[in-house]
Amino acid sequence: MKKIAIVMGSDSDLKVMQGAMDMLSDFGVPFEVRVISAHRTPAAAENFAKAAKDDGFGAIIAAAGKAAHLAGVLASYTTLPVIGVPVKSSTMDGLDSLLSTVQMPKGVPVATVAIDGAGNAAILAVQMLAINDESLSERLCKYKCDMAAEVAEKDEKVRKEHSKLA
Amino acid sequence: MKKIAIVMGSDSDLKVMQGAMDMLSDFGVPFEVRVISAHRTPAAAENFAKAAKDDGFGAIIAAAGKAAHLAGVLASYTTLPVIGVPVKSSTMDGLDSLLSTVQMPKGVPVATVAIDGAGNAAILAVQMLAINDESLSERLCKYKCDMAAEVAEKDEKVRKEHSKLA
Amino acid sequence: MKKIAIVMGSDSDLKVMQGAMDMLSDFGVPFEVRVISAHRTPAAAENFAKAAKDDGFGAIIAAAGKAAHLAGVLASYTTLPVIGVPVKSSTMDGLDSLLSTVQMPKGVPVATVAIDGAGNAAILAVQMLAINDESLSERLCKYKCDMAAEVAEKDEKVRKEHSKLA
Amino acid sequence: MKKIAIVMGSDSDLKVMQGAMDMLSDFGVPFEVRVISAHRTPAAAENFAKAAKDDGFGAIIAAAGKAAHLAGVLASYTTLPVIGVPVKSSTMDGLDSLLSTVQMPKGVPVATVAIDGAGNAAILAVQMLAINDESLSERLCKYKCDMAAEVAEKDEKVRKEHSKLA
Amino acid sequence: MKKIAIVMGSDSDLKVMQGAMDMLSDFGVPFEVRVISAHRTPAAAENFAKAAKDDGFGAIIAAAGKAAHLAGVLASYTTLPVIGVPVKSSTMDGLDSLLSTVQMPKGVPVATVAIDGAGNAAILAVQMLAINDESLSERLCKYKCDMAAEVAEKDEKVRKEHSKLA
Amino acid sequence: MKKIAIVMGSDSDLKVMQGAMDMLSDFGVPFEVRVISAHRTPAAAENFAKAAKDDGFGAIIAAAGKAAHLAGVLASYTTLPVIGVPVKSSTMDGLDSLLSTVQMPKGVPVATVAIDGAGNAAILAVQMLAINDESLSERLCKYKCDMAAEVAEKDEKVRKEHSKLA
Amino acid sequence: MKKIAIVMGSDSDLKVMQGAMDMLSDFGVPFEVRVISAHRTPAAAENFAKAAKDDGFGAIIAAAGKAAHLAGVLASYTTLPVIGVPVKSSTMDGLDSLLSTVQMPKGVPVATVAIDGAGNAAILAVQMLAINDESLSERLCKYKCDMAAEVAEKDEKVRKEHSKLA
Amino acid sequence: MKKIAIVMGSDSDLKVMQGAMDMLSDFGVPFEVRVISAHRTPAAAENFAKAAKDDGFGAIIAAAGKAAHLAGVLASYTTLPVIGVPVKSSTMDGLDSLLSTVQMPKGVPVATVAIDGAGNAAILAVQMLAINDESLSERLCKYKCDMAAEVAEKDEKVRKEHSKLA
Repeated sequence: MKKIAIVMGSDSDLKVMQGAMDMLSDFGVPFEVRVISAHRTPAAAENFAKAAKDDGFGAIIAAAGKAAHLAGVLASYTTLPVIGVPVKSSTMDGLDSLLSTVQMPKGVPVATVAIDGAGNAAILAVQMLAINDESLSERLCKYKCDMAAEVAEKDEKVRKEHSKLA
Repeated sequence: MKKIAIVMGSDSDLKVMQGAMDMLSDFGVPFEVRVISAHRTPAAAENFAKAAKDDGFGAIIAAAGKAAHLAGVLASYTTLPVIGVPVKSSTMDGLDSLLSTVQMPKGVPVATVAIDGAGNAAILAVQMLAINDESLSERLCKYKCDMAAEVAEKDEKVRKEHSKLA
Repeated sequence: MKKIAIVMGSDSDLKVMQGAMDMLSDFGVPFEVRVISAHRTPAAAENFAKAAKDDGFGAIIAAAGKAAHLAGVLASYTTLPVIGVPVKSSTMDGLDSLLSTVQMPKGVPVATVAIDGAGNAAILAVQMLAINDESLSERLCKYKCDMAAEVAEKDEKVRKEHSKLA
Repeated sequence: MKKIAIVMGSDSDLKVMQGAMDMLSDFGVPFEVRVISAHRTPAAAENFAKAAKDDGFGAIIAAAGKAAHLAGVLASYTTLPVIGVPVKSSTMDGLDSLLSTVQMPKGVPVATVAIDGAGNAAILAVQMLAINDESLSERLCKYKCDMAAEVAEKDEKVRKEHSKLA
Repeated sequence: MKKIAIVMGSDSDLKVMQGAMDMLSDFGVPFEVRVISAHRTPAAAENFAKAAKDDGFGAIIAAAGKAAHLAGVLASYTTLPVIGVPVKSSTMDGLDSLLSTVQMPKGVPVATVAIDGAGNAAILAVQMLAINDESLSERLCKYKCDMAAEVAEKDEKVRKEHSKLA
Repeated sequence: MKKIAIVMGSDSDLKVMQGAMDMLSDFGVPFEVRVISAHRTPAAAENFAKAAKDDGFGAIIAAAGKAAHLAGVLASYTTLPVIGVPVKSSTMDGLDSLLSTVQMPKGVPVATVAIDGAGNAAILAVQMLAINDESLSERLCKYKCDMAAEVAEKDEKVRKEHSKLA
Repeated sequence: MKKIAIVMGSDSDLKVMQGAMDMLSDFGVPFEVRVISAHRTPAAAENFAKAAKDDGFGAIIAAAGKAAHLAGVLASYTTLPVIGVPVKSSTMDGLDSLLSTVQMPKGVPVATVAIDGAGNAAILAVQMLAINDESLSERLCKYKCDMAAEVAEKDEKVRKEHSKLA
Repeated sequence: MKKIAIVMGSDSDLKVMQGAMDMLSDFGVPFEVRVISAHRTPAAAENFAKAAKDDGFGAIIAAAGKAAHLAGVLASYTTLPVIGVPVKSSTMDGLDSLLSTVQMPKGVPVATVAIDGAGNAAILAVQMLAINDESLSERLCKYKCDMAAEVAEKDEKVRKEHSKLA
């Protein structure tokens, strides 16, 4: 199976990105975690992105905050799909990260998920791999079912405890 | 080859989404265009999304404006990757469409591109298909090269005409 | 008397929505509380909304955060008035929830109240029922009077303690 | 049948509010149109709102721009449901009108629709009246069906003309 | 001397408005503090504002949060200058209060100060009274001087302790 | 009678500020119009503001766009009340001008009106002068009455032409 | 004299950047104009930035729109000061470009000017060169004087034509 | 070597600006720290800025919050490059400071860095001095290398500890 790269601009993003690692682990998809900064280690960014396809990666998850260029910079060097996770930092409530990640110019897309949406980035990566992997596709189905069941259970509980019909 | 769905919430989005159709045509990727409204034809949305995988689609591009729920609603019914295009309407400069599309809750991602970024949505769809399609992957490489060559040509021209070094 | 539905996208919204339950209790209006996710349990959303009118509901209060599609999705399946409560989550200060809830396309309105405005959603529901219920209408009048009296009392106290006219 | 009031802060809002008049006409719901300014004719606002219930109104639609206080001011004087239409003016792209209308304090809700969403305000008013009016409720059902049919027709046309499957 | 009114929409604003009381006390300007809600006690708002001039007030400071209509509502009933203090509440970081206060339509201005800017509202009120009161004007001069001296002192200290010129 | 200064950062603001000149003319209040830039002619700004009180001005209206420092800079040199008019320029829809004008630090207030709110700035200046000028105060009353009458007339007309009660 | 680079992400930015070319021409500072895209020609960006210092450049002006990564990417490869011009594109009113340019992480600054502020970017570049160039510094002084004189002239004209003191 | 001025509008900004002092110390660049308020000590601002060049400063770093006029006011009095640090205060999340600092009118630029970006302001100042100082330029190179090495080290560690490839 192709593996997924989880690249973050700083190791301070590790806490947020744990959600992506956990999700990929749950789906049994192999992944490599990297700390590469678009601005502080541009050569590493270039080298990693250029080689990613040949190194067996199927998609790249890139997380960064503020003027979040990481996903875009990686996307400029590869034809693999790049998934961007805008990370909320201490100012601007994540709006800067979101706009810097999603508003890419024509020709070089970044598949952007919600601010701090690490788990969803992982699911999106799995969905991409699952286009040609029936087993993975079935695991996604099961995940959807489990999620629905969990909500249904809470629904049952809340309905009983909080409704007031008399 | 798997085909791509281009779904829009209203036929007024056709003009913006032409960019996606042109791009997929250029890459030789088959696509089906649909007008389905999350709010006006929810049954069509459900039916389409539930059957999309079995109908031979590899990914879904969904474009909508304002409280843009279309991509999210389709994503709730399928395990295929859903690419969201926030469409700018007459108020809020696209911010409402962007936030409604990208800020999805955990478990149901939407791969969001730039506001009115139809062309990039198509490229992203092609990138997803290309994960397991070397020929498509090579066409993406060529696209990248052509794009670079086009910029380089403009660079040459602008450099000569506008620099003032004496 | 028709009953009110209080639907929330996640049981983490319970704390915010307690304000709606308390208010409906105070007005003696029966209500049912549900946890239904537009994205995780779309079938439940459809089933609930389609049956709501026949199940004796007069109006639906729907609360959700981030890309808050719940109110809009329910509204797409029912002709009952749907009241949307945008819930503030950890990023974007509630702006994403607000825009996702209020900016509905023509044909499918959502009656949106303030961010985290659960109590007001309940009052609005009561006002709708009161259009044809004089007793309820009188209770709304009394609520307005009590509210004014409470402010007047505080006014008296603050005026005396904090003014400095000499 | 109870009638609906359409109140606007300035006759410059007439163009936007035509959508509400047309919609109510289509549903056969009687309405009265007023120009009342919360700031320029506060006495008229008070008199109108205080008498609205006894004057046979079932709900009030209030449209205003900028620091849009009209809906809130009317709501302070009546127990009828007040529907607010934030009108986009020449600056701030409607955000000022939206926040001024929707962010009401506890106790006095305004049922806010989209910026310039006059048609939806009318539908919402009809939905409120329909809670106890089966005939009106059926007309809403028919409206929903017609709307769906219209989208389905466009879907058919667009699908044929724009898809490229070969 | 004319007195100043400090009106707030809720006694929860007392903490923020303490800054205005302290400032007026320092300038020896008499003031009356009121809790009046534009939406919960509209009659009190009307009565207060209509009588304010004859009751000896020279200017009105009005503080409110969220859809902050208080200053505008008071201004609709009086020809006295009304100073608006947008109060930051739990969502939207004060932007809703600011826009609701400052974006008044033509004919009814509100003199808006910074979010939570209670002290400055008081200074502004003093400046208005000082237009025809030399003694007050001199106190404003002295305040400006003291303020400058205080900054100069800090400048001296910081310059010595933190500069590194060698 | 004290005169009013209308200061603008650029003569491109003349069109917007015409509203202030017209309003002051209507009220018979003398005014002087100046073009002074906080950034391009800081010495003129300082000289003007320092002398304004002795030169017979009662209040200063200052209009500027983008990083609108003019009102704040004038306020730093005078104890007269300074009224700020944020002017909308080609980007940011006036938000930059508004925040730069209104968010003044403690000690130096600027009485901010709506974006492009030149007419209201003039009314506010008249209100300030009217604190001690009964004749001016009466003219403000009359203005309020005329304004109300004008709205009432439109109300009458719109009510007749657009209501549909049968 | 060191030369200045004016780099833009697309030749569609030429119109906006003409202001920078004119300004540098006026100051007699040599400049080279380039079209280099951070995302479409990353190799050109790298090559240009790495060699810029040795190629005789003293500072780099970089203009780009949307997710404007150009200035940041160039700054990652050079120790020369990089001046960023956020270019307004068709959505988000320039806010995306501004935040993507200015919110750089620690270690790699971009000296950001106003949205579409090409002329100021050039002046800033001249100011940097002038730190060690008295002749250039004098030309900056003269520019400041001319600018002040131009405003003063307009002030004179407007003052005479528009004031109304009688 | 020319020295750098670090000017802040209030000593409450000291904590944020420590990052600039530390950075300049690390680069061995002399600096002077000042507390000067554009609004509370305008004369000090003028005197400082007018004399800064002759006093041996090469560039000025100016930090302020809210309606952050300090950098712009200093820039109006000097031809030295002025670097603006928008400081986040208790409301508006730094957006007011950013727009007030960066959106300068034509003719008077401020080189703006990220909100609270004190360290980067210092690096930018060093880059300006380094245009004509090879030794400083080399220290900047070394800083870039050290920064890259630090990230590379973290990359190594994170890669080993968090990747899951089996």
